[in-house]
Amino acid sequence: MPDSTTTPVTSWPAQPPAPLDAAALASIDAWWRAANYLSIGQIYLLGNALLREPLRAEHIKPRLLGHWGTTPGLNFLYAHLNRAILERKLSTLYVTGPGHGGPGMVANAYLDGTYSEIYSDIEQTEAGVQKLFRQFSFPGGIPSHASPELPGSIHEGGELGYALSHAYGAAFDNPDLLVAAVVGDGEAETGPLATSWHSNKFIDPLHDGVVLPILHLNGYKIANPTVLARIPEAELLNLMRGYGHTPHIVSGGFHGEDPMLVHARMAETLDVVLNEISEIKRAAAQANAAGEDFARPLWPMIILRTPKGWTCPAEIDGLPVEGTWRAHQVPLGNARDTEAHTRLLEEWMHSYRPEELFDESGAPAAGITALAPSGPLRMSANPVSNGGLLRRNLDLPDFRDFAVDVPAPGATLGEATRVLGGYLAEVIRLNPDNFRIFGPDETASNRLAPAVYEATDKQWNAEIRPNDMNLARAGRVMEMLSEHQCQGWLEGYLLTGRHGLFNCYEAFIHIVDSMFNQHAKWLKVTADIPWRAPISSLNYLLSSHVWRQDHNGFSHQDPGFIDHVVNKSADVVRVYLPFDANTLLSTYDHCLRSVNYVNVVVAGKQPAPNLLTMEEAVAHCTRGLGIFDWAGTETPGMSPDVVLAAAGDVPTLEVLAAAAILREHLPSLAVRVVNVVDLMRLQSAEDHPHGLSDREFDAIFTPDKPIVFAYHGYPWLIHRLTYKRTGHDNLHVRGYKEIGTTTTPFDMVMLNDLDRYHLVMDVIDRVPGLGARAGLLRQQMQDARLLARQYTRDHGEDAPEVADWAWGQAPEAAAEPPV
Amino acid sequence: MPDSTTTPVTSWPAQPPAPLDAAALASIDAWWRAANYLSIGQIYLLGNALLREPLRAEHIKPRLLGHWGTTPGLNFLYAHLNRAILERKLSTLYVTGPGHGGPGMVANAYLDGTYSEIYSDIEQTEAGVQKLFRQFSFPGGIPSHASPELPGSIHEGGELGYALSHAYGAAFDNPDLLVAAVVGDGEAETGPLATSWHSNKFIDPLHDGVVLPILHLNGYKIANPTVLARIPEAELLNLMRGYGHTPHIVSGGFHGEDPMLVHARMAETLDVVLNEISEIKRAAAQANAAGEDFARPLWPMIILRTPKGWTCPAEIDGLPVEGTWRAHQVPLGNARDTEAHTRLLEEWMHSYRPEELFDESGAPAAGITALAPSGPLRMSANPVSNGGLLRRNLDLPDFRDFAVDVPAPGATLGEATRVLGGYLAEVIRLNPDNFRIFGPDETASNRLAPAVYEATDKQWNAEIRPNDMNLARAGRVMEMLSEHQCQGWLEGYLLTGRHGLFNCYEAFIHIVDSMFNQHAKWLKVTADIPWRAPISSLNYLLSSHVWRQDHNGFSHQDPGFIDHVVNKSADVVRVYLPFDANTLLSTYDHCLRSVNYVNVVVAGKQPAPNLLTMEEAVAHCTRGLGIFDWAGTETPGMSPDVVLAAAGDVPTLEVLAAAAILREHLPSLAVRVVNVVDLMRLQSAEDHPHGLSDREFDAIFTPDKPIVFAYHGYPWLIHRLTYKRTGHDNLHVRGYKEIGTTTTPFDMVMLNDLDRYHLVMDVIDRVPGLGARAGLLRQQMQDARLLARQYTRDHGEDAPEVADWAWGQAPEAAAEPPV
Repeated sequence: MPDSTTTPVTSWPAQPPAPLDAAALASIDAWWRAANYLSIGQIYLLGNALLREPLRAEHIKPRLLGHWGTTPGLNFLYAHLNRAILERKLSTLYVTGPGHGGPGMVANAYLDGTYSEIYSDIEQTEAGVQKLFRQFSFPGGIPSHASPELPGSIHEGGELGYALSHAYGAAFDNPDLLVAAVVGDGEAETGPLATSWHSNKFIDPLHDGVVLPILHLNGYKIANPTVLARIPEAELLNLMRGYGHTPHIVSGGFHGEDPMLVHARMAETLDVVLNEISEIKRAAAQANAAGEDFARPLWPMIILRTPKGWTCPAEIDGLPVEGTWRAHQVPLGNARDTEAHTRLLEEWMHSYRPEELFDESGAPAAGITALAPSGPLRMSANPVSNGGLLRRNLDLPDFRDFAVDVPAPGATLGEATRVLGGYLAEVIRLNPDNFRIFGPDETASNRLAPAVYEATDKQWNAEIRPNDMNLARAGRVMEMLSEHQCQGWLEGYLLTGRHGLFNCYEAFIHIVDSMFNQHAKWLKVTADIPWRAPISSLNYLLSSHVWRQDHNGFSHQDPGFIDHVVNKSADVVRVYLPFDANTLLSTYDHCLRSVNYVNVVVAGKQPAPNLLTMEEAVAHCTRGLGIFDWAGTETPGMSPDVVLAAAGDVPTLEVLAAAAILREHLPSLAVRVVNVVDLMRLQSAEDHPHGLSDREFDAIFTPDKPIVFAYHGYPWLIHRLTYKRTGHDNLHVRGYKEIGTTTTPFDMVMLNDLDRYHLVMDVIDRVPGLGARAGLLRQQMQDARLLARQYTRDHGEDAPEVADWAWGQAPEAAAEPPV
Repeated sequence: MPDSTTTPVTSWPAQPPAPLDAAALASIDAWWRAANYLSIGQIYLLGNALLREPLRAEHIKPRLLGHWGTTPGLNFLYAHLNRAILERKLSTLYVTGPGHGGPGMVANAYLDGTYSEIYSDIEQTEAGVQKLFRQFSFPGGIPSHASPELPGSIHEGGELGYALSHAYGAAFDNPDLLVAAVVGDGEAETGPLATSWHSNKFIDPLHDGVVLPILHLNGYKIANPTVLARIPEAELLNLMRGYGHTPHIVSGGFHGEDPMLVHARMAETLDVVLNEISEIKRAAAQANAAGEDFARPLWPMIILRTPKGWTCPAEIDGLPVEGTWRAHQVPLGNARDTEAHTRLLEEWMHSYRPEELFDESGAPAAGITALAPSGPLRMSANPVSNGGLLRRNLDLPDFRDFAVDVPAPGATLGEATRVLGGYLAEVIRLNPDNFRIFGPDETASNRLAPAVYEATDKQWNAEIRPNDMNLARAGRVMEMLSEHQCQGWLEGYLLTGRHGLFNCYEAFIHIVDSMFNQHAKWLKVTADIPWRAPISSLNYLLSSHVWRQDHNGFSHQDPGFIDHVVNKSADVVRVYLPFDANTLLSTYDHCLRSVNYVNVVVAGKQPAPNLLTMEEAVAHCTRGLGIFDWAGTETPGMSPDVVLAAAGDVPTLEVLAAAAILREHLPSLAVRVVNVVDLMRLQSAEDHPHGLSDREFDAIFTPDKPIVFAYHGYPWLIHRLTYKRTGHDNLHVRGYKEIGTTTTPFDMVMLNDLDRYHLVMDVIDRVPGLGARAGLLRQQMQDARLLARQYTRDHGEDAPEVADWAWGQAPEAAAEPPV
């Protein structure tokens, strides 16, 4: 394992411009050839790794997998960055946008020495090379992408689009870090990538690191040219300038051009660019020291135009390959089919002159390893790429200090997220450099404001005008109207050892479904990689939720993110539905302490009854679910007649209102009221670590009594989580339906049959032998619904007795069934 | 209802440049004022619609909902486009990116007369205005966005990001259509929007229409400035030029500038821009006529910079409102709280001089309606916005002609998607102008090639080079590496009355989860809107599916899109899992004929056994599920001992292999083999229109026998779909687990316990009384798995007897358990 968890410090030194001498360029070229050789070996070879005997078909893998096309470009950049790091001692993270260039990144980490340090069986010997080759995309081996198994990677790059947002996430609050972010020209066509260039309006030259985007135009995707490679250069330069960058082009390697010429060009450009960065950093520091303002800098970026699959055979079977889409994956897919193809592969590999690259033992030649920086300056060993090593626990205030007063259940009203905002403000104050809040322009709407803006500002490095509020060059809140950016930034921030949360409207979090997938998969895999230290959990705060989108309407109603999330590994996902301010505080304190999870918290922002004192809330959240003794009518020690259960703030309110009606009108009915905050408690213990044992589940929900469950989201999720439970056949779930009507909050609840009246009817329909009084009550409930509906039609808002109802009011006053 | 389904034809006339006279500008201004007045009225008023008496608190809605900020800009553009349409007879579709400007779009459709034609109770009278105001964002009324209820809309704009891809989708194959696409500067920050500017590399000046993007910079989002409004103008212009546009700026209205000056500027710019378009169209036609090539044009676009909430009170309660984020939603949220606020609202509304805008009856004044084009030239009545009216059924070839020969089940191998490619090529030939295939650079990888490229090309209007293949200025295949673009283009294409499909890797279709949500919601709502004619279904073809991503690894494995889809309304979603070439052909023929659905089809691209003749395939797909008599061992008329069921190609293969093993080794066991193609058949009839009745379900799956179900995706979906079924407790489902190992196809199946050996063990474990022979077989299965696993570790590929197994081979040869 790498021996240090200290991130090396970059002093952003400028270098006097001086062209590299031939020896220096030759050393870069040697690294490049070695990395290319090792990349091809991983894709093709099972044996004869150093070609010390003639290549035969049986040396070649039977299934040829992996991607060559992007790899020589990635290796080229890695070699050049090594040279610059050696000279400037730049702490550098390498983000591989085209993550399918995995063989190249493995090769570089191997040449760095990091790979053998971490995987001690892959030594720097001929046998080690052999193993390195064999394991690649091989059963029981390593994946083909820049996956968690790869030291130095925070970015798998399997799903394209997030290279720059991950890079910026890594750079925030890492003022001495350079992030070299390679963007493939395929990836550049994705939406998330296209907007992520604008991240440069959010980076602070004083307190953040530097992202150096390198747009690698190799011209082709799987089967097509790329858009950015097929527009005039002037247009491309305009685009980069329009994105706020100073672009620098390095182009070469086409039509057999000598790579040494391209090396010289690249080295020179890299020096120019790094000097520009030094100058920007210096000027910003100077202005700051002088108390002067300074304009947003036009950060440099590099456009590297080289042939796809550079240095592979120009033609195979009469078709052009190098410099075309045919080089994307395995250029010689038939390498062991004919002697001619085998020879062609051998020739190709010999073109890198392996005899110069490895010493007799099979170790990389000394001239090559000399280009590797030492220790954590190696990009494959930069501690930020194993962020858990650097992670410090948050200094958390006591959330109990922010508790709302609850003299009796429902006696006070609270806006849960607004209360949480006060707590988060204090988290910000106590953790000024490793905690951030991300949101797509919804932090205020979700009511974390104004509190958080008393502690910090929104970071904004574009123009600021006099009337603006809470904008500053540096701040803990990051807002851009792109859920992809919020998610990508936060992931990058967490993966490099920090903390944060993403607050979003519930419906629109689906925009990042696939990003969540990829992050959850990353976490799942890292849990089994001993050298990867745990990172902070990815915390969602979803507000403006489905039940409060009655007015924006159908397009804003979607509680399905929870369903999406629970498809992922139970080791990784947690879902919480706190229903009031104190349960939200308790839940979030827990989330901010946790590691390696994705915590989904759905909470309300509208005034709602506070139900539990902080002490009760902590106990309830610790259990994850529990019986509200105070709300039910059961006799201690006896089984209830019916269980009324809820998960979510609006369902909890309706269940309480239903319980109040039942208590009033059917006082002899033994009603148990259950609330579920931690949704995963419902699953079987064998399916989820939070799952209740069947015995506990039966004790709470009963094995045989009707359960009427009011749920925040799609009702079938509750069935899915509980289908193995004893009492499942007695379970009746009400939740959100896809109806789509514009209306008021309570009317929306009624439209979905989740309202107190309907819940009472559900109980009456399911408990046998309730008699005539229950029949009358049922009719009263029907009438109450009709009246409540009519009120909204007449007045455009909910009837006050419904809208203002709170537990503890006499139910007559609150929800009196009109008889 | 609008009287015509004929799209008006645009001849792209140029106009000699001539500034508008004062009367013309005044007429535009009057429309603008009327639309603004009607917008505000919808947001605020319950009564006193035309302010014919002093405004009182009770005239004001109790819940003030809707968004004013973007609305005056939308109205301004609408008025100016009307003028141009009148003069040039331009068939124009208006796409409202900031769909929350719904009040404005309703107002314009009302002034057009379309609204009253469609909704006959909303007449052009004072009473009609009253109803128009009341219904907006009111219980039982209309949503606040540019929803399906709005005539002229194909784009709700609730979830931001898709305005331009919808616009381009509408423009494809509509050579005479102008699509004016308003992009809000908030929306412009989203990823999908940021890449969708590049759609201009895919539009053909000869055969497609024209998209005129109008970037509306009003400077603010909900609570923040926008990025594009806070970069220097030179940078913004570079960005637009970099996107390949010729930008034109119109700026004005700030600090109380007289709107008439801004009208003059806008009118002039619009004429310049439309003349540029005319010239591009003319030059392209001329070059084409002369047989000459021509360069991709730099299409014009407009940047409109006006104050947010333009014309609302400059200050409210001492805080600046007009031109700030405070104007985003309801600037006067407290309009009925105090007399002063009520007066301020009244004053604001009077500033539009309503007495000039409406005649005595309350109808819009004649001077205003004169600016409305007639009939389908009205943007609110353009038939493309109600695409079902224009939709022609596809001319479909007989899919049976493409059938693969199946002399016996499994006797031949087929690559299902490749066979489908041949059929789709013929669909393309027969429907040269209303059918397109969309994909993110995966059409070839998904093996619809080479067949489809024998019938058409990929449309590509960026540079084409000599070595390129299948690229042309016009073609039926649209490929850009952005799932968002593919989805958005296809939606726009379908919503305007055409047909198509989206082919994608299964895992990465999650990228468009939220877009699917919005489209499904749109379809759900339109089904209840009588004047909206049905549109073609949105067809997915998901290949390179989870079971064939053993090599790309964990990041490429995700079958959860199906789970996501089935959350949406049962009226809208259909999921099919055809397992071979003939079932895929039959399924797709059905999909291409259907309307108003989202059809999700998951199919294989790798060689797999063809199981059913075309006749059998049609029968099986028509039933949606069925018993494979030929594969089971049950005695007709008797209940089987066990049901082996499958859905998906790989699970079907494994179930067949398991059935073969059981037939060989436990010949007296009565095994029923069931296959499910139409997943929705599993749901209860009450939950989904395709759902089997319980009686049918029991007849197939038995009420009481063990069911071992091998499923393509996450196993719990099968439980969720069947939890109400009689035999649910006997159901045991195997499917995909989140494991994440790099391996081979069969080894991946084994890792998920979905393999033949495990299925046999499942049967043995569940059927009572099988005796010693079964016990021995169970051990053999264990051993077979270990050997199969070891083979992959040794050789890097699956053992031939597994990889090459096909039904009909003697099971000894195929899957002989090593004893």
